[in-house]
Amino acid sequence: MIPRYTPKDFAELWSSKRRFEVWLEVELAACEAMERASVVPVGTAASIREKNLVLDSDRIDAIERVVKHDVIAFLTHVEELVGPAARWLHRGMTSSDVLDSALAILLRDAVDAMLPRIDRLLAALAARAKQHAHVPMIGRSHGIHAEPVTFGLALAGHHAEIARGRVRLLTARDEIAVGKIAGAVGSYAHLTPEIEADALDKLGLRPETVATQVVSRDRHAAYFTALAVVAAGIERLATNVRHWQRTEVAEAEEAFTTGQKGSSAMPHKRNPILSENLCGLARIVRAAAIPALEDVALWHERDISHSSVERMIAPDATATLAFMLERSAGLVEGLVVYDENLRRNLEITGGLFFSEGVLLELVGKGVARQEAYVWVQRNAMRTRKGASFVDGLVADPDISAKMTEQEVRRCFDLGHVLRHVDAILARALG
Amino acid sequence: MIPRYTPKDFAELWSSKRRFEVWLEVELAACEAMERASVVPVGTAASIREKNLVLDSDRIDAIERVVKHDVIAFLTHVEELVGPAARWLHRGMTSSDVLDSALAILLRDAVDAMLPRIDRLLAALAARAKQHAHVPMIGRSHGIHAEPVTFGLALAGHHAEIARGRVRLLTARDEIAVGKIAGAVGSYAHLTPEIEADALDKLGLRPETVATQVVSRDRHAAYFTALAVVAAGIERLATNVRHWQRTEVAEAEEAFTTGQKGSSAMPHKRNPILSENLCGLARIVRAAAIPALEDVALWHERDISHSSVERMIAPDATATLAFMLERSAGLVEGLVVYDENLRRNLEITGGLFFSEGVLLELVGKGVARQEAYVWVQRNAMRTRKGASFVDGLVADPDISAKMTEQEVRRCFDLGHVLRHVDAILARALG
Amino acid sequence: MIPRYTPKDFAELWSSKRRFEVWLEVELAACEAMERASVVPVGTAASIREKNLVLDSDRIDAIERVVKHDVIAFLTHVEELVGPAARWLHRGMTSSDVLDSALAILLRDAVDAMLPRIDRLLAALAARAKQHAHVPMIGRSHGIHAEPVTFGLALAGHHAEIARGRVRLLTARDEIAVGKIAGAVGSYAHLTPEIEADALDKLGLRPETVATQVVSRDRHAAYFTALAVVAAGIERLATNVRHWQRTEVAEAEEAFTTGQKGSSAMPHKRNPILSENLCGLARIVRAAAIPALEDVALWHERDISHSSVERMIAPDATATLAFMLERSAGLVEGLVVYDENLRRNLEITGGLFFSEGVLLELVGKGVARQEAYVWVQRNAMRTRKGASFVDGLVADPDISAKMTEQEVRRCFDLGHVLRHVDAILARALG
Amino acid sequence: MIPRYTPKDFAELWSSKRRFEVWLEVELAACEAMERASVVPVGTAASIREKNLVLDSDRIDAIERVVKHDVIAFLTHVEELVGPAARWLHRGMTSSDVLDSALAILLRDAVDAMLPRIDRLLAALAARAKQHAHVPMIGRSHGIHAEPVTFGLALAGHHAEIARGRVRLLTARDEIAVGKIAGAVGSYAHLTPEIEADALDKLGLRPETVATQVVSRDRHAAYFTALAVVAAGIERLATNVRHWQRTEVAEAEEAFTTGQKGSSAMPHKRNPILSENLCGLARIVRAAAIPALEDVALWHERDISHSSVERMIAPDATATLAFMLERSAGLVEGLVVYDENLRRNLEITGGLFFSEGVLLELVGKGVARQEAYVWVQRNAMRTRKGASFVDGLVADPDISAKMTEQEVRRCFDLGHVLRHVDAILARALG
Repeated sequence: MIPRYTPKDFAELWSSKRRFEVWLEVELAACEAMERASVVPVGTAASIREKNLVLDSDRIDAIERVVKHDVIAFLTHVEELVGPAARWLHRGMTSSDVLDSALAILLRDAVDAMLPRIDRLLAALAARAKQHAHVPMIGRSHGIHAEPVTFGLALAGHHAEIARGRVRLLTARDEIAVGKIAGAVGSYAHLTPEIEADALDKLGLRPETVATQVVSRDRHAAYFTALAVVAAGIERLATNVRHWQRTEVAEAEEAFTTGQKGSSAMPHKRNPILSENLCGLARIVRAAAIPALEDVALWHERDISHSSVERMIAPDATATLAFMLERSAGLVEGLVVYDENLRRNLEITGGLFFSEGVLLELVGKGVARQEAYVWVQRNAMRTRKGASFVDGLVADPDISAKMTEQEVRRCFDLGHVLRHVDAILARALG
Repeated sequence: MIPRYTPKDFAELWSSKRRFEVWLEVELAACEAMERASVVPVGTAASIREKNLVLDSDRIDAIERVVKHDVIAFLTHVEELVGPAARWLHRGMTSSDVLDSALAILLRDAVDAMLPRIDRLLAALAARAKQHAHVPMIGRSHGIHAEPVTFGLALAGHHAEIARGRVRLLTARDEIAVGKIAGAVGSYAHLTPEIEADALDKLGLRPETVATQVVSRDRHAAYFTALAVVAAGIERLATNVRHWQRTEVAEAEEAFTTGQKGSSAMPHKRNPILSENLCGLARIVRAAAIPALEDVALWHERDISHSSVERMIAPDATATLAFMLERSAGLVEGLVVYDENLRRNLEITGGLFFSEGVLLELVGKGVARQEAYVWVQRNAMRTRKGASFVDGLVADPDISAKMTEQEVRRCFDLGHVLRHVDAILARALG
Repeated sequence: MIPRYTPKDFAELWSSKRRFEVWLEVELAACEAMERASVVPVGTAASIREKNLVLDSDRIDAIERVVKHDVIAFLTHVEELVGPAARWLHRGMTSSDVLDSALAILLRDAVDAMLPRIDRLLAALAARAKQHAHVPMIGRSHGIHAEPVTFGLALAGHHAEIARGRVRLLTARDEIAVGKIAGAVGSYAHLTPEIEADALDKLGLRPETVATQVVSRDRHAAYFTALAVVAAGIERLATNVRHWQRTEVAEAEEAFTTGQKGSSAMPHKRNPILSENLCGLARIVRAAAIPALEDVALWHERDISHSSVERMIAPDATATLAFMLERSAGLVEGLVVYDENLRRNLEITGGLFFSEGVLLELVGKGVARQEAYVWVQRNAMRTRKGASFVDGLVADPDISAKMTEQEVRRCFDLGHVLRHVDAILARALG
Repeated sequence: MIPRYTPKDFAELWSSKRRFEVWLEVELAACEAMERASVVPVGTAASIREKNLVLDSDRIDAIERVVKHDVIAFLTHVEELVGPAARWLHRGMTSSDVLDSALAILLRDAVDAMLPRIDRLLAALAARAKQHAHVPMIGRSHGIHAEPVTFGLALAGHHAEIARGRVRLLTARDEIAVGKIAGAVGSYAHLTPEIEADALDKLGLRPETVATQVVSRDRHAAYFTALAVVAAGIERLATNVRHWQRTEVAEAEEAFTTGQKGSSAMPHKRNPILSENLCGLARIVRAAAIPALEDVALWHERDISHSSVERMIAPDATATLAFMLERSAGLVEGLVVYDENLRRNLEITGGLFFSEGVLLELVGKGVARQEAYVWVQRNAMRTRKGASFVDGLVADPDISAKMTEQEVRRCFDLGHVLRHVDAILARALG
C-alpha cells in the first residue's frame, strides 16, 4: 500500500488507529455479551465506553517491544487507561479472537468501500455502452479484423464481466464476514457458543463453524482470489483501451488534460498511461492470490505464518483493487471515442469481413463447406494485392456459377450482421 | 496429467476421443436448434446421428497438420464420413462456439465427477469425527501445546472446510456451465440468440451474457481458483496427518499395507507418504491459478493465448484434484489413531494447559490481568526444570493469597474445558 | 507434457524407459565406484552390464503396486533379471541417491537439448536483425509512435535478451548437475565421500555440498525460475509479432502456409497463432516457478512433497520451453516483413517524431526546457486536426524568434536519428 | 513495505527523498559526460552541484498532479531551484534514462545492504554448526526417524544453501547494475553510446546491450526470482526450527526474552514466532516473482505497466528479504539447543535406525537384498509393540543363521555412522 495507489479511505481503514479501534470494538462487544451471560459484571463495557478512550499507537508499540505480542501490548495499554475494570476484558479469549474478528470486519468493510466504486464503473460502462450502442467497429480476433461489432457492444461485454465481479465481491464479503470468540483452540474452554454468537452478531459477523485458534484461512484465500479475478477483468478492459489508442488504430483514447505532458523527451506524446497502470496493478492484486492460498495449511490448531502475509496483502490487495475500480471508472467516463476512425478502420479491408456470409450462402446453395471456404479464401487473399473483394467474388467463375452478382452483393450488409446488438445490450444492461 | 495421478474417468474425460465426441454433440445440438428455427433442413442432424460416427483422431490430426486449425480439421473429417449433409453443420458458427461450449461441458462434467469423491471424503471425515469425538488430544498452536481439543474436533474442522469446498465446486460448476453459439465475434451475425439458447439448453448450458469470439475467461479463472482453494484445504488436512505421524508425536498414522516398504535403505520406516504426496499435489493445483488469471485479459474480441494454457491446466488441475479427493478420502478412512499416544502427549506437560483457567480465576478475584499473567507464567516456566505446575501454583504466595488450594485444583478439569465439543460437532456435522 | 507441445526428444527424455535406464546407470556407476573402493566384488557391474538388461516398465509398476515404493520396485525387478549379483547394487544407498542423481542427469540433459534450439533462435534473430538492420520503423512506446528505430534494431534487442537467456540456461545447467550418493540422511553412514565423488564424476555430476536425504531443492527452484525468465523473453518477442501483425499495423506477419486456414467461420483470416500460442505457453513455464519455490522448504532431512511436483513440472516446463524455442526460431526465420507498411506507418504522423530534436535545438538556443516543451507540444497537438507539424513549427512566432526555417527543417533528418544503429547492432551481435 | 518488517536503511533507500537524490545523481552524471563530450557547456553540472539542492518532494508531487508525469515534475522543480542552467539537464534523454538507471542503482544498493546481513547469517550458521558439530541428532525423513546426523550437520546444510543464496544475490546484483542513457527508444537519437558509457561508469553501472525505451525487464525478473530462491532457503531453515521446537521434540528453541509473553490466553506458551514469521515473509518475497516475470513482455519499445508493479515489489521484496536475513541471523545466534532432548529423542526407538547396517551385513553374507529387507523389517515392526530391536534380530532364526550375535550388535555403532561428519563440515564451511 503506497500512497500513490491508496485511496484515502483505505489509508484510514488500514491505519494503526483504525485497527486498534476495531480491536476495542471486538473486546467491548465480547464483554457486553459476557455481561448478558452473567459472566462479567453488568456495566463493565459501558463504563469503558464512557471514557472515550484515545488509544496511543506509539505506546502500544513500545509495550510490544517488551512483550513481543501485539494484542497483549494493546490490552496492557487499555488497562493503563481504564484501570481495574480492564481485567474483565478478553475474558476466556485468545488474541486471535480479537485479531480474526477484527480482520473480518476490516476485510468486509473493504468490500463495502469497493461497492460504490464498482457501481460507478458499472454505471460508466452502461452509459457509454448505450451511448455508442450502434457505432460500428470492426471486431478483431487475434488482433486481425474479424467481423463487425459495435463500440457499445464491446463495452457491454466489459459491463457483464464487471457485474460478475460485483457478485464475486459480495460472495467474498459474505464468506469473510465470519469472526470467532472461542478461545485458545476454538473449544470455548472458558466461553460459550452463545456468548460468541451474541457478540459477533453485534459486530455484523457470523461465528466460524469449527474454529481452531483462528478462523479457517480457506475463507481468506477465497477472498483474495476473488479480488484477483475482478482485477483481471479490469486488466482486460485496460488492455482493450491500450489497443484502441494505438497510433494506427486511434479509435478511442484516454482523456488528456490541460497541462498534461506525455513524455519528458517527446512533446508530441499522448500515452494510455492509466490503462497501462491498471494492467500493472492487476499483477499486484493477482500476486496476492498465491500467498493467500499458501496460508491455508496452517499447522495443527494454527501457526502464525499467515499473519505477516496478511499484514501486507490485506491492505495492498484491497486498496489497490479499490484504486483500480476508481481509476477505471474515471477512464471509462472520460474515454474519447473517435467515430470517424472507427469507420475508417472498419472500411480498410473493403468488406472482407462479409466473407462468412458469402460462404454460408454458397453452402446454402449446396456447395460443400470446405470447398466454398477455398473459393472465398482465394478472393480474400487477393485483396492483399489491392484487389476488390466483392468484385473478385462476383467475377469468380465457381462462385458466379452458384450466386448471382446481386446475391453476392446482398451479403455485404452491415445492418444485417449487427441486427442483434440491441438484444445483446438488453441482456447485459437489462 | 500423468498416469500416476490421473483417475481413470479423468483420463477418458480428457481424451481426444471424448473431446471430439463432445464437439460433435455441440455441432449436432446447434444443428437441431437451427432445424427448429428453420435455418437448416429438418432431419439433418438425425441423419448424421444415425450413422453413429466413429471419429478417427489420427485422421483429424493429419488434416490439422495441413490446415493448422483443429476445428476445421474435425469438420473436414466429419464431412469425409457424412458427405453432403455435413455442410449444414457449423452454419454461422465459429470454432470457439464449438470449443468453448465443449470445454464448458467437460469442465462441468469434471466437477460432477469430483462430487462423489468429495462426498466420500466428507463422509469419511464425519464418520471419523464422530468416532473420535471425545478422545482428548492436546491442541497445538505454533506446534506448542496449547489447550485440549479432541481428535474428533480436529476432523470436524476439516469437514467444515471441505464442506465449504464442496459449495465452491458447485459455484464453479454453475459459473462454468456457460456456452456460446454466437458466431465469429459474438454478434450472432448469421445466428440468433434463440438458436443459441435452444441448443445450449439441450447441452445443459446457459448462454454467455455478452460473448466475444469466446466465453469470457473470468469464468475459467474463477473455476481454477476455486479448485486451488479446495486443494489447499486438503493440504491442511494432509499437513496435520504428517504432524500427527511424526515419530515423537505418533498420534495417528496412515494405514501401512502388507508388503509395503517404507524406504529402500531403512527397513524400519513407515512414512506418511500419502499426505506428503497430497501436499505436493496441492502445489500443482494451486499453480494453475496464476495462468488462469493471466488468461482473462485476451486482446479485443479474443486471442488464442488461453488455448494452450487450458489444454494443459484443465486436465491437470481437474484430474489432480479428483485424485487428491480420492486419496485423501482413503487416507481418512484408513487412518490409524493411537488413543494411548494421544493421552500420553496430553499429559506430558502435567496440566500446563490449564494455565488459562487459573489466570481467569485470579482475574475474577480482582487481580489485574497482566499481573495474574505474570504469576501464572512464572510457575509455568518452572515446569521446564521439572517442577509440578499445580503444586507450584498452590505454593505460590501471590496466588495462594487469592485462591485456595481447592480452587486451584478445580481449574484442572478436562471435562470442563471440553464441555462444548458436542455442540461444535453438531454445528459442523448436524 | 501433452503431445501437442512436446518435442520428440523430450518425450523420450521423460519416458519411463529412459528414467529406468538412467536409474540403472546411476546404480552401476555407484557399484563400479564401490568396486574400486573394494567394498563390492570387482566385476559385479561388468557382469550386470553384459546382460544388456531390458527393463520392463509394466513389471516395475506391478511390483510398485505392492511395495508402494518406486525404487524398491525397480531394484526388485533388476534382481529378478540379474539374480544374486544384484544384491550388491544400491549398497548403503537410499532411493534418493538414485532418484536425485538421475533427475540431475535428466534436467541437465534437458538443457543440453535446449541449447541447439536456443542457438537456432539466436541465429535466426541475428540473421534477420542484419537483414533488416537499416529498415526504418517507427519506435513505439505505450503503443504510441515515439521516435524511429529500425526493424533490425528491434530484433537485435530480442537477440540480446535471448542471449542472456542462454547464459541463464547454462548457469541453471551448472547448478543442477549435482548428484548425491550419500545414504539415507546424507551422512555416508555406509558409504564414503570418495565413492560418491568417483561415481558422480563418471555420470558428469558433482556431489552436493551438504546433502540431506536429497539434493537441496534451492537448486531446482533456481533451475525452474531460470526457465521462466527465458520463456518470458520469448513471450516479449511473440507479443511484438502480434502487434506487428495487427491489421492496421501490418508491418510483419507470421508465414502462412499453403492449405492453412485461419478461421472456421471467416475465410479471410490470417492470424498470428504461433505468437499467441507462445504467449500462452510462457504462462505454463512461468507457472512452474511457484511450486518449485514451494518445494524448497522440505521438512527436516526431507519429505516427499516435492516429488509429485517434479514429476509434473520437470517434463512440462522443460518440454514446453524446448517447444517454444523451436517454434519461435521457426517463427523468426519465416517472418514476412512488409517494408512498405513500415514506411507507411513511419510517415503517418508527418514527422511528429522529430519533436525532440526541435526541443533540444530551442534549449540550445537558450530557451528554458519546460517552455520549449510547451511550444513544441502545441504544434504537435495541432497535427491531430490535420495541420503539418513542420509548417506549424516554422510559423510559430515563439519558435521562429529562435530558429530559422532551415534550422527547424534540419531537425527532420531520419539518417541523423538512426546514425548509431550499426554501433548498437555490433554490440548485440558482434 | 510496512514499518514492522522494514529495516531502517531500507526505509531510507526507498524513500522519496532518496529517489529524487538518485535521479539528480543520474542527471548530473549524464550532464558531466555531455560536458566532456562538448555537448553541454563545461561547468554546468558543477554549478548545479554547488547549490546543494534540497529537493522538495511535496512540491514535486504538486507539479506532478498537473503534468501527470513524475520525471517532468522533478525536472520542473529542479529548474525552479537552479534557473536557466537547468535547461542543459536531461538533454536528449527520456524519463526512463533517469528512472531505469536510478532503479538499477537502488536495486544494486539493496543487494549491497543485504550482503552484511547474509554474511551475519552465514557466520552464525557456521559458528553454531561448529559448536554442535558432534552433537548427535536423529535425522528424520518424512518426519519419521531415519538415521543419525548431528545438529551441526543440519546447520551446515543450511549454511551451504545460504552460501549459494549469496552467490545468487551477487549474480543478481551484477545483472541489475545496468543503466541506460540512450534516449526515447534506445537509439541515441540525440546522444551517443560514448556519453552513456561515460556517465554510467561514474554511477557504477554498465550500459544495456540493446535498450528499448527501457532496460530490458528480464534482468529484473531474474533479480526478483533470485530473491525468492534466497527467501525459500530461509523458509527451510525456519521450518526446521519450528519442528525442533515442537513440544514433543523440544530439541531447540528460539530465545525467549525477559518480559516476553507467548499468548494472551495461555501464560505457559513459548512459541517459535520468529520462525513462523519468516515462513510467512518467504511467501511475500516469493509472490513478487510472478509479477516480475509478467513485466518482461512489455509492448514494443515499452509500455508503463511494469512501473506500478516495481513501485510496490521493489521496496517490498528487498526490504522483506533484508529483514528476513537479519531476523534469521538473530534466530540462529540465539537458538537454544537442548542436548539432553536430542539424546532422548535419538534413543526413543532403541536403535531402530541401525537397521540398514544389519541389512547390508546380511547382503554381504550373501542374502538377497529384498529377502534381507523382509527379515529386518519384521523385527523393526515388532518394536512398535515394545520389543527390543537388537534382541529381536539376534533371536531371529533367519538372521542368526547368517550373523553371530556379536556381528549384529556391532552394527549398533553411532560413531561409525557419524564418522564422515567432519569431512562434510569441512566441505561446507572450509
